[in-house]
Amino acid sequence: MSKDTELTTQLRVGVVGGGQLARMMAESARNLPLTLCVMGSDPGDSAAELADEFSLGSPHSAHDLTLFAGEVDCLTFDHELVNLDAVHALTHDGHHVYPTADSLRFAVHKAYQRTTLAALGILGPAFAVLEKFDDDEFDIFAAVTERVPVVKADHGGYDGRGVLVSDSLDEARIFAQRVGTSSQILLEEPVDIVAEVAVIVVTSRNGERVAYPPVLTRQVDGMCVEVSYPAGLDPAILNECALIADRVADVTGTVGVLAVELFVTSTDVVLNEVATRPHNSGHWTIEGAATSQFENHLRAVAGWPLGDTTPTSAFVTMVNVVGSERPGDPHAALAIPGAHIHDYGKSWRPGRKLGHVTVCGDDDSVVSRAWMAAEALGTSARRKP
Amino acid sequence: MSKDTELTTQLRVGVVGGGQLARMMAESARNLPLTLCVMGSDPGDSAAELADEFSLGSPHSAHDLTLFAGEVDCLTFDHELVNLDAVHALTHDGHHVYPTADSLRFAVHKAYQRTTLAALGILGPAFAVLEKFDDDEFDIFAAVTERVPVVKADHGGYDGRGVLVSDSLDEARIFAQRVGTSSQILLEEPVDIVAEVAVIVVTSRNGERVAYPPVLTRQVDGMCVEVSYPAGLDPAILNECALIADRVADVTGTVGVLAVELFVTSTDVVLNEVATRPHNSGHWTIEGAATSQFENHLRAVAGWPLGDTTPTSAFVTMVNVVGSERPGDPHAALAIPGAHIHDYGKSWRPGRKLGHVTVCGDDDSVVSRAWMAAEALGTSARRKP
Repeated sequence: MSKDTELTTQLRVGVVGGGQLARMMAESARNLPLTLCVMGSDPGDSAAELADEFSLGSPHSAHDLTLFAGEVDCLTFDHELVNLDAVHALTHDGHHVYPTADSLRFAVHKAYQRTTLAALGILGPAFAVLEKFDDDEFDIFAAVTERVPVVKADHGGYDGRGVLVSDSLDEARIFAQRVGTSSQILLEEPVDIVAEVAVIVVTSRNGERVAYPPVLTRQVDGMCVEVSYPAGLDPAILNECALIADRVADVTGTVGVLAVELFVTSTDVVLNEVATRPHNSGHWTIEGAATSQFENHLRAVAGWPLGDTTPTSAFVTMVNVVGSERPGDPHAALAIPGAHIHDYGKSWRPGRKLGHVTVCGDDDSVVSRAWMAAEALGTSARRKP
Repeated sequence: MSKDTELTTQLRVGVVGGGQLARMMAESARNLPLTLCVMGSDPGDSAAELADEFSLGSPHSAHDLTLFAGEVDCLTFDHELVNLDAVHALTHDGHHVYPTADSLRFAVHKAYQRTTLAALGILGPAFAVLEKFDDDEFDIFAAVTERVPVVKADHGGYDGRGVLVSDSLDEARIFAQRVGTSSQILLEEPVDIVAEVAVIVVTSRNGERVAYPPVLTRQVDGMCVEVSYPAGLDPAILNECALIADRVADVTGTVGVLAVELFVTSTDVVLNEVATRPHNSGHWTIEGAATSQFENHLRAVAGWPLGDTTPTSAFVTMVNVVGSERPGDPHAALAIPGAHIHDYGKSWRPGRKLGHVTVCGDDDSVVSRAWMAAEALGTSARRKP
């Protein structure tokens, strides 16, 4: 049966990377007029079983990226750990690639992100960038801020990897030395966080833009474990979060989903980090908003009208399922009223994000219900004490 | 990667038939701890691209059904046009088959359905069953009711096929003669319909039961074109609809989804028809209820706790996309706020159900938005004048 005899003609959209973000794009692509092609690195990738087409290739190989781009009408990404020069060349050669290499660079290089955005007035914590490890520079930064610096690798980290938050100056120093052997070192003043907020902004290749309401996120060891709507903070603070996110979208020029993570302190809102793709802090939108971040990401890169971002319920909570020593009981999770279980189809491994649960409802019992389901599934993450 | 290393261990559920109902079961199966295996009759079947496993086989062949049942932990159905004797034998041989042949018989044989339910006090229109065509019996029924009878084949019809509603006694007679060559003939008194209502009831193999709120349906030429929640009728009438549906679930012993279609007249509620599977009148539950009819059908046949049936929005409308002379413009449909487009992946053919659109919202603009999207997609069905 020819595709063009179906209800809808099909645009071919390519996704570089086969993780759970590509998988959830594939789920949302089912009812959009597009064919979702995924280039992953392993036949067991999370997205392999759900993509319309799945092929193997390396995101670091210019050859593989060029071949893949030639098979699709437009290209997007499951993750930013790609060959930016090759991506840049694809755009130069007339391929439709969203986000562009210029936008991806913000997500790939944390030092570049921090420096560039700060220079444009979008402030994060006080910071310093060390090209390589230098005892004097490290000590000066620690002395000026009077705190043990947070140490980050410029690139290569995710979910808390490549980042050290410690009370020990010696530990921070040793970590910075190690990071410095392969990357620039980003030192940041630790922020006294009252709350963490994330904002998902979606910008179409045509320039149309929508945003989801700010949500409250909770991180443990640098990994997101819980996301709740509404954020439950002062409307003026949430409004500032939304304004900062919109400005970051302008500055980074990100087509598709942009996730902006922010720290709320007792006096201020400061930028934490930026991701130029669908993000864990937006998974709640699958059931919790009229259009999910994944569907809107695909609409944006395809150049179609963006969908309504209004929440479907008064309260929505998403809780990640992180691998523990062994899996739990999915049937017990199914018994939790309103629990939507998302299984990424990944092999069980302690510390790994394996799925998530979302609960929507009329009151804040959604939080405890989402946790009960995630706990039944055997998550290693713990509720707020 | 072995399935049992994933977040959830996998029950193997088999679906006989590869149409859009099996496809939507496959979509909802993604995040349940099961592997969905579909036995279809054509590689181009709607469910083929979404099922975890897809095989070819005939629903009429005892051999194919037995082979398929041996590969799964439990068996269910996309449609009821199956070899009932073979299905009965599978249950007898210890396979878990839901619904059973005894339940399916109600959906397969309209004369049996009408006779059996009427005998138990669940009344539809006045009716007569003719074993074969007989001019005298036909004339007596027409004379007693003083109306041109609605003529139905006992079995083999769907979406208005095998049914004639006519103002011409001669046309009805000729149709009945033709039907009588291959089937019992069911004659029914035409009902003066004020409204049509459908109720979806779900019963687990463990006996747990839930129901969705009654919805208003609109049929054109026997095919469902529009379904809306809330039904907008007197609560006492809706309560009676729910009670009748619950009683039909008891009597038919249907495990899984049972759809009960009812006629509301100026004085009464009478049974129209019964389907022992997920049904067009329940497609709105995918976005419109906390748990969809497809997920609850799978939970029911698997013996897991049933999910919450509460609507997610104050107003939900689903409109079918029926093939017209040629396809419409999917991009125009994407521009309709809140329109969720479902494309069954079937080849375009005038008169065929190709997909549907659902819109959820806070007011009754959901009806016009759903229609706008369906019209943009090129549906041949028309709105209520």
